[in-house]
Amino acid sequence: MTDQEIRAEAERRASDRTDQEIIRKTLDEGVQTVWDRFALQQPQCGFGQLGVCCNNCAMGPCRIDPFGGKTSLGVCGANVDTIVARNLLDDLSVGAAAHSDHGREVVQVLLETAEGHGQGYQIKDVEKLHRLATEYGIQTDGRATNDIAKDLALGILEEYGTIKNRIQLAERAPEQTKEIWRKTGIMPRSIDREIVEAMHRIHMGVDADYVNLLLHAMRTSLSDGWGGSMAATECSDILFGTPTPLTSITNLATLSRDRVNIVLHGHNPLLSQMIVNVAEDPELKRMAEEKGAKGINLVGMCCTGNELLMRSGIPLAGSFFDQELAIATGAVEAMVVDYQCIYHSIPLTAGCYHTKVFTTSTKGKISGTIYKEFKPENARDTAHEIIKLAIENFPNRNPDRVRIPERPMKVMAGFSEETIRKALGGTYKPLIDAIVAGTIRGCVGIVGCNNPRIKQDYGHITLAKELIKRNILVVETGCSAIACGKAGLLVPEAADLAGEGLASVCRLLGIPPVLHMGSCVDCSRILVLAANIAKELGVGIGDLPIGGAAPEWYSQKAISIGTYFVSSGVYTVLGIPPKIFGSSNVLNLLADGVKGITNSAFAVEPDPLKTADLLEAEINRKRKALNI
Amino acid sequence: MTDQEIRAEAERRASDRTDQEIIRKTLDEGVQTVWDRFALQQPQCGFGQLGVCCNNCAMGPCRIDPFGGKTSLGVCGANVDTIVARNLLDDLSVGAAAHSDHGREVVQVLLETAEGHGQGYQIKDVEKLHRLATEYGIQTDGRATNDIAKDLALGILEEYGTIKNRIQLAERAPEQTKEIWRKTGIMPRSIDREIVEAMHRIHMGVDADYVNLLLHAMRTSLSDGWGGSMAATECSDILFGTPTPLTSITNLATLSRDRVNIVLHGHNPLLSQMIVNVAEDPELKRMAEEKGAKGINLVGMCCTGNELLMRSGIPLAGSFFDQELAIATGAVEAMVVDYQCIYHSIPLTAGCYHTKVFTTSTKGKISGTIYKEFKPENARDTAHEIIKLAIENFPNRNPDRVRIPERPMKVMAGFSEETIRKALGGTYKPLIDAIVAGTIRGCVGIVGCNNPRIKQDYGHITLAKELIKRNILVVETGCSAIACGKAGLLVPEAADLAGEGLASVCRLLGIPPVLHMGSCVDCSRILVLAANIAKELGVGIGDLPIGGAAPEWYSQKAISIGTYFVSSGVYTVLGIPPKIFGSSNVLNLLADGVKGITNSAFAVEPDPLKTADLLEAEINRKRKALNI
Repeated sequence: MTDQEIRAEAERRASDRTDQEIIRKTLDEGVQTVWDRFALQQPQCGFGQLGVCCNNCAMGPCRIDPFGGKTSLGVCGANVDTIVARNLLDDLSVGAAAHSDHGREVVQVLLETAEGHGQGYQIKDVEKLHRLATEYGIQTDGRATNDIAKDLALGILEEYGTIKNRIQLAERAPEQTKEIWRKTGIMPRSIDREIVEAMHRIHMGVDADYVNLLLHAMRTSLSDGWGGSMAATECSDILFGTPTPLTSITNLATLSRDRVNIVLHGHNPLLSQMIVNVAEDPELKRMAEEKGAKGINLVGMCCTGNELLMRSGIPLAGSFFDQELAIATGAVEAMVVDYQCIYHSIPLTAGCYHTKVFTTSTKGKISGTIYKEFKPENARDTAHEIIKLAIENFPNRNPDRVRIPERPMKVMAGFSEETIRKALGGTYKPLIDAIVAGTIRGCVGIVGCNNPRIKQDYGHITLAKELIKRNILVVETGCSAIACGKAGLLVPEAADLAGEGLASVCRLLGIPPVLHMGSCVDCSRILVLAANIAKELGVGIGDLPIGGAAPEWYSQKAISIGTYFVSSGVYTVLGIPPKIFGSSNVLNLLADGVKGITNSAFAVEPDPLKTADLLEAEINRKRKALNI
Repeated sequence: MTDQEIRAEAERRASDRTDQEIIRKTLDEGVQTVWDRFALQQPQCGFGQLGVCCNNCAMGPCRIDPFGGKTSLGVCGANVDTIVARNLLDDLSVGAAAHSDHGREVVQVLLETAEGHGQGYQIKDVEKLHRLATEYGIQTDGRATNDIAKDLALGILEEYGTIKNRIQLAERAPEQTKEIWRKTGIMPRSIDREIVEAMHRIHMGVDADYVNLLLHAMRTSLSDGWGGSMAATECSDILFGTPTPLTSITNLATLSRDRVNIVLHGHNPLLSQMIVNVAEDPELKRMAEEKGAKGINLVGMCCTGNELLMRSGIPLAGSFFDQELAIATGAVEAMVVDYQCIYHSIPLTAGCYHTKVFTTSTKGKISGTIYKEFKPENARDTAHEIIKLAIENFPNRNPDRVRIPERPMKVMAGFSEETIRKALGGTYKPLIDAIVAGTIRGCVGIVGCNNPRIKQDYGHITLAKELIKRNILVVETGCSAIACGKAGLLVPEAADLAGEGLASVCRLLGIPPVLHMGSCVDCSRILVLAANIAKELGVGIGDLPIGGAAPEWYSQKAISIGTYFVSSGVYTVLGIPPKIFGSSNVLNLLADGVKGITNSAFAVEPDPLKTADLLEAEINRKRKALNI
């Protein structure tokens, strides 16, 4: 490739200047990245993309002829609607399981901390603990914090089981929304149970009615959003503090030229937050200096990065697609991962440089990495050991192969629901007034990942810019928030890019027009935000002039998030087509039929400008219905 | 097709004379069956069959080039070992979920019965209730049966959750076996949790170490066999009685020429057992007579059929592959299904005749059927209504299209573990003595389904005959037991086909050389049998001269069963290759590496005669190690 071709290819791959710089380096050096693997996988199987392939049982694999030929049934007699719906439920359940199982670990650490076994953990947000305890009917008056925390943790863990048959956190939804769930039979009964029942239903010869399958998909997604994910968010806040606004920096320029760079990647703050705490040990700084470094530079990545940014202002190196690029700077001594969205090939990438990859979870091992098992009872020691090993790796850095981009981007983050409410003076009334007055037209949550089917971050940034221009407030989580952070949209100055009304509100409050609300499990914060606004207005979530979008999603978690958005009443536009186009019945139900139930639906639109049109139209429709 | 071709094709498809007769009828009438759909699906996708296709996330579908080409990694960087292991864990989890979720429903009905809400249910085996309560540490002395039952049901339901972190029923395993599980880290912690964690692990970027994935697969399977399945078996026994030996009849000749035929199909005895009870109502008999029938003929099918045969001696019309053939006799007024292994296309088959198909479970709807929701609180009423509708359908039977084969086969069934032990005089000593003496060489469990890749029942029958000839006692569950029932092996007279030693023992005890131990969840009975023999011998299950086989499996449940057999120490031969041949590492671990852990492994052998050789060799190896 010529320099010009390399430059063009880097621009085709990613939006961010620092990303492009390092992509050029990988192309120069011949280091394989996700874009290369995507190209090698072409052509991808058309049956799989349409969702009409079923490889569940040993009579298969079966596939339905999308052109209406003789092969219209699987060996078991399943038709295309069942196969497509079953595949979707399977994918959604994997996503819900990922979120909820992450939540389970946080709740368990809360329990162990309360019982005094959690090394170095403490209950940081006692107020939130009390608030949740009250929701769970746990006595708080005159009781020790740890006793309350223990009861709360046990209460939430019980909801992973089945006896009580209800999830307390789902009670937070407005009455009108819960009434829809009750009437439709999709009120979640427990966290794990819905997932296990989903797995049961997709077994050959169980559920063969696509409507029934999709309704259970909605219930399963609600058990994630209003269950496992919300438990993860709330208990993380209790342990590590509820985020409040702060500023930090983002993009690959956050890596340091002269300090030991440790990239914290994954999703669960349990270990990474401990590394943040432990890294302050002056002894470690001294060790780093002995090795020729000027100190330790922790940077976050993907949703672990979001968690650390939100609570501790740790610089954010990048999103899902930046994991290889960070290593390719040649300046990363250690990448520490917990789980979810870690490329299996990351040790191969690391092998091209001096980077050491540490895996830390029993459920997320990767062959070719250094495994340091993290348990609550050894959290501090493990964190210490990993940092030490990273420091010892500093002398192996090859200065000739290091390239760190210049100029990190400033970001403001930390917009938990509590913080937003507090910023508004303890009530949503000012926001509601602004929406009623039309100063702000509505609100859209942009969430999700990166996907090689679309130029990295293009969908997120373009959509966010377009929406704020139209006076629609944007809230974000996950890699979407990181994309907009890198693009300079997460600063109060970005109000200049917003329409007049929204800009004036942002300037008044000193906030950005795009609010960073956290990691992907923190989409639960968006639910709580919507629920609280709806309750203050006395309507259901489905009545609010709001919307959701996942312009670049790739993960099964995004399927669950999108579905709990829609099931909660939030119209949601996907930028990447889900694998359901083989069944017009499934497609029609999700894009249209569901409207009659939840007053919301899915849409698929790859073009972010058209997505903005769709979302604006939906917001106008909802405004009209509210007579505003 | 000429008559001769039709005859040849029917003989190619199935082993049983009555099955062949009706297959000829379907070929004559042009009614599509599973064999036709299998033919239409050819050629099946080679990537899928090798397990090297991954369609988990929206960057995919990806596939690994099995010829070692450039496409060696998925877009996410997953290699072939991870992809194959992840797919296997996914399939296994679906199977484990099916069993365990079935178990959950039985436990819940036990709870509701104890609380007085279960219409028409009662606790039938109080002795077993007390035995289980004692295992769970529940006080029984001087307490009312319902109070004990309630505590037990709640205790088991708790194990679906996560708080206690252990499964009481798994304590039944011998100490040596549990020690292996503990050391390997595969002791199951709860029922639902292992499945949900499995789903989490297969999410992109979580578990990317095939050994770690397969170990969790073993743990998940144990949570099924020693958890959900065992709970299903035990609580079904408590509610409906622990099976004791009885005789009945099997094959399609069990359908009646002059009575209302109701086929009870599926897996869970909750509704079908209620139909059996309600059908005795003389009022219903009178109604049937009014419609011109001589009464009501209930027959079972698949594992619901096994449950009903074992406890109530209800005639067994056939196995998984007989569901369409039963309808094709033209003599079935109603097919009542709960869930699992029901063809989605069964209403299409029924539409060719007068048969009405009733679906009864909220989680197992099938479009095109009559849905009568079954709940414990309306069980009797629902059963009554379905029978009534079946009776009303009798006049619609078209005598010109009816063909019912002659001569049902006699079977002896009801061999629960308790019954076998009792038959031996309350202790396994006589059996152990016979094994030590070599009169019986060992014992093999043959389990599993039908699969169009092999002539129906050929694998089951051929293997069972070959093993008993070699003085190896055979125990069976599921469609394997039905196959051998149809073939006349489940009668004491079949001792004539056994080797001298086994034949003499069978004659002495008046039992068949092939023992019917129940439905597919009742593979847990085989575990208990093995555990109790091992404990009496003072060894682990892996030391016993026993084996397992699934010659014709198709279902994800069979993957779970096979894996909990192997994980418990039972060498297991699969007649149908699992979709793992794309990864030599996964293959080698399961077929060889696991031996070092459990002293057992998987083998794949389509030829049942060679399978017998493999099993005999394994039994001889274990005998040698025991010095017998």
